Amino acid sequence: MKKIAVLGSTGSIGTQTLDVISHRPEDYEVVGLAAGANIGLLLEQVRQFKPRWVSAGTAELAAQVRAEAPSDVRVVHGEEGLRQIAGESGANYVVCALVGSLGLTSTLAAIEAGADIGLANKETLVTAGHLVMSRAREKGVSILPVDSEHSAIFQCLNGEPAKAIKRLMLTASGGSFRDLGREQLKNVTVEDALKHPNWSMGAKVTIDSATMANKGLEVIEAHWLFDLPYDQIDVVLHPESIVHSMVEFVDTSVIAQLGNPDMRVPIQYALTYPERVASPASPLDLLKQGALHFRPMSFERYPCLRLAYESGRAGGTATTVFNAANEVAVARFLRGEISFLAIEETIERTLAKHVSLPSPSLEAILETDAWARREAEAVG
Amino acid sequence: MKKIAVLGSTGSIGTQTLDVISHRPEDYEVVGLAAGANIGLLLEQVRQFKPRWVSAGTAELAAQVRAEAPSDVRVVHGEEGLRQIAGESGANYVVCALVGSLGLTSTLAAIEAGADIGLANKETLVTAGHLVMSRAREKGVSILPVDSEHSAIFQCLNGEPAKAIKRLMLTASGGSFRDLGREQLKNVTVEDALKHPNWSMGAKVTIDSATMANKGLEVIEAHWLFDLPYDQIDVVLHPESIVHSMVEFVDTSVIAQLGNPDMRVPIQYALTYPERVASPASPLDLLKQGALHFRPMSFERYPCLRLAYESGRAGGTATTVFNAANEVAVARFLRGEISFLAIEETIERTLAKHVSLPSPSLEAILETDAWARREAEAVG
Repeated sequence: MKKIAVLGSTGSIGTQTLDVISHRPEDYEVVGLAAGANIGLLLEQVRQFKPRWVSAGTAELAAQVRAEAPSDVRVVHGEEGLRQIAGESGANYVVCALVGSLGLTSTLAAIEAGADIGLANKETLVTAGHLVMSRAREKGVSILPVDSEHSAIFQCLNGEPAKAIKRLMLTASGGSFRDLGREQLKNVTVEDALKHPNWSMGAKVTIDSATMANKGLEVIEAHWLFDLPYDQIDVVLHPESIVHSMVEFVDTSVIAQLGNPDMRVPIQYALTYPERVASPASPLDLLKQGALHFRPMSFERYPCLRLAYESGRAGGTATTVFNAANEVAVARFLRGEISFLAIEETIERTLAKHVSLPSPSLEAILETDAWARREAEAVG
Repeated sequence: MKKIAVLGSTGSIGTQTLDVISHRPEDYEVVGLAAGANIGLLLEQVRQFKPRWVSAGTAELAAQVRAEAPSDVRVVHGEEGLRQIAGESGANYVVCALVGSLGLTSTLAAIEAGADIGLANKETLVTAGHLVMSRAREKGVSILPVDSEHSAIFQCLNGEPAKAIKRLMLTASGGSFRDLGREQLKNVTVEDALKHPNWSMGAKVTIDSATMANKGLEVIEAHWLFDLPYDQIDVVLHPESIVHSMVEFVDTSVIAQLGNPDMRVPIQYALTYPERVASPASPLDLLKQGALHFRPMSFERYPCLRLAYESGRAGGTATTVFNAANEVAVARFLRGEISFLAIEETIERTLAKHVSLPSPSLEAILETDAWARREAEAVG
């Protein structure tokens, strides 16, 4: 039986992870749940899954949990709480479904504790891929991708060695504004941006999907997860989001993973790997779908993707800056402070001011992250 | 180094097999070649690949080979010659690229000799799947599919166990007449039928592709190769022939194998498995392709496919009758004796007269085969 901790249990990936687990109660024991401010839902989850450890975003929110949760539940809070759930709750499998760079320290804590990781937090690998992957190897810990694209690639590879791979092809829907040109993007609203055509996701990821920063983060993540150079990682536009990604092998064979857009499938695969079990998701009806389309990606149309590749190739702290500046810019856009196109401008201007530090330590990453956030807040 | 014998070396699959081998001369030694009547090409192949054993279709043709080939080459002929090349040439890998039921006895001879089999001859499994697969298991011999659809499924499975499989989805281009209705099929000519939209293949396979008898044979073959019931094997129309087949797993994930229609890719995979190596084929350009389409299969439009499923489910000698009647009917169509639609009628009428014998011996299969051929010749 897997003893599971879910970091970010009330978010989109967190709730779907618990949905998957609830369909197979005999296989999983939920030992820890960590959430931010959604205490109502967190308490519901505590009642349903009976974890021994629970964490809330702040001391105040933790007090609310304490008042309602059974007395034998250990209630913690904040970043330290996340690290405790990851490293001390007795979990042998930690689902890291936190959004943003908050996921890094708790993922590292889980690795130190020897737990396998179901990784839905892109920023962990984007900012500290070199630290996380090398430490995971040292500790014999598996990092299993939860993201649909990386899960797809992981499934297409299914044990094939790196030398057999010609390239990865990550698919991108193109996001909310895929049918708009650059000129039309000038005046789009937050409301428009939040309407993703295929996937139902959190606000940050939905905006990242419209700017293609999301795909950029995925490219960097793929670089670390699959240990491949950026020249072997391509992005192709695929509006239907049915082909979740593909691998082209040296013999010209392409293996693709397809399915309805339902995160419960990759989440479940990360939990049950190497086995496959029945899923609550609905099967793909390719005949109803009728056609699958593929279009070339454009760095001119999606400069955030170009910036991601550039920071990935620069390496070191550059990807931390890319990620932090993007997080700040998206938050500022969502608050109505800056326009949609100012997101890419904010990232580009912040990156331009940065001199990348190679193979940074965790401290250097966190310092760079803080610096980039200040810079990105000040752009404009 | 693999010691290879190619049965049917001057045919479409045979020549492409030798093309693949010629790109990797350090990995393969060709020890045996068997052809029918194309002595000119066979002698060219003998000069290029220097096999120790060569077989021609008849004693007379073998005498022609004898006159031209180096004196240390062992020249044999006929069905017995095929069996000798398969079982006595020292091959540890036999590519069976014979068309029709001729492939069965030589495949069995190769299995007895302990050679792995690259199987491009559908009829071997269609008529004697129970004998071939059980004997291969007993001898520890691998049967590697060369057909593009079965290779695709084999690649999509990549070691996944049967319990993980929901169903196989074999793709079918629809053949030369896919855009014609039943009424329009009444007067089509042999010349029309030989124009396959995507693949360049031999005449028999091209006609089988237009009637969908080919897909029916593949369904039966998949049943034996992957040890799955017919309810778990579906056919979907895919006009572009880019997705060579798919597997739907129990978790709703679908894995597909894609590539340009180039038989050298599955042929090479059957030779190099479990490794993948660079191929002379051109890489797939999905962006140029733009779209992939999928349409439902119709048993009304393609009765030969229905008859294949019916004979597959009936089991025993029924599939031998399906195959033999089809071979005769196609030959009669190619000779201009019967119309295109009389192919399905010939199969159906021959099957209607047959009482299937369960778990038949090789002798019973060969007797049934001969009976079905006589019956099919007499239909009309």
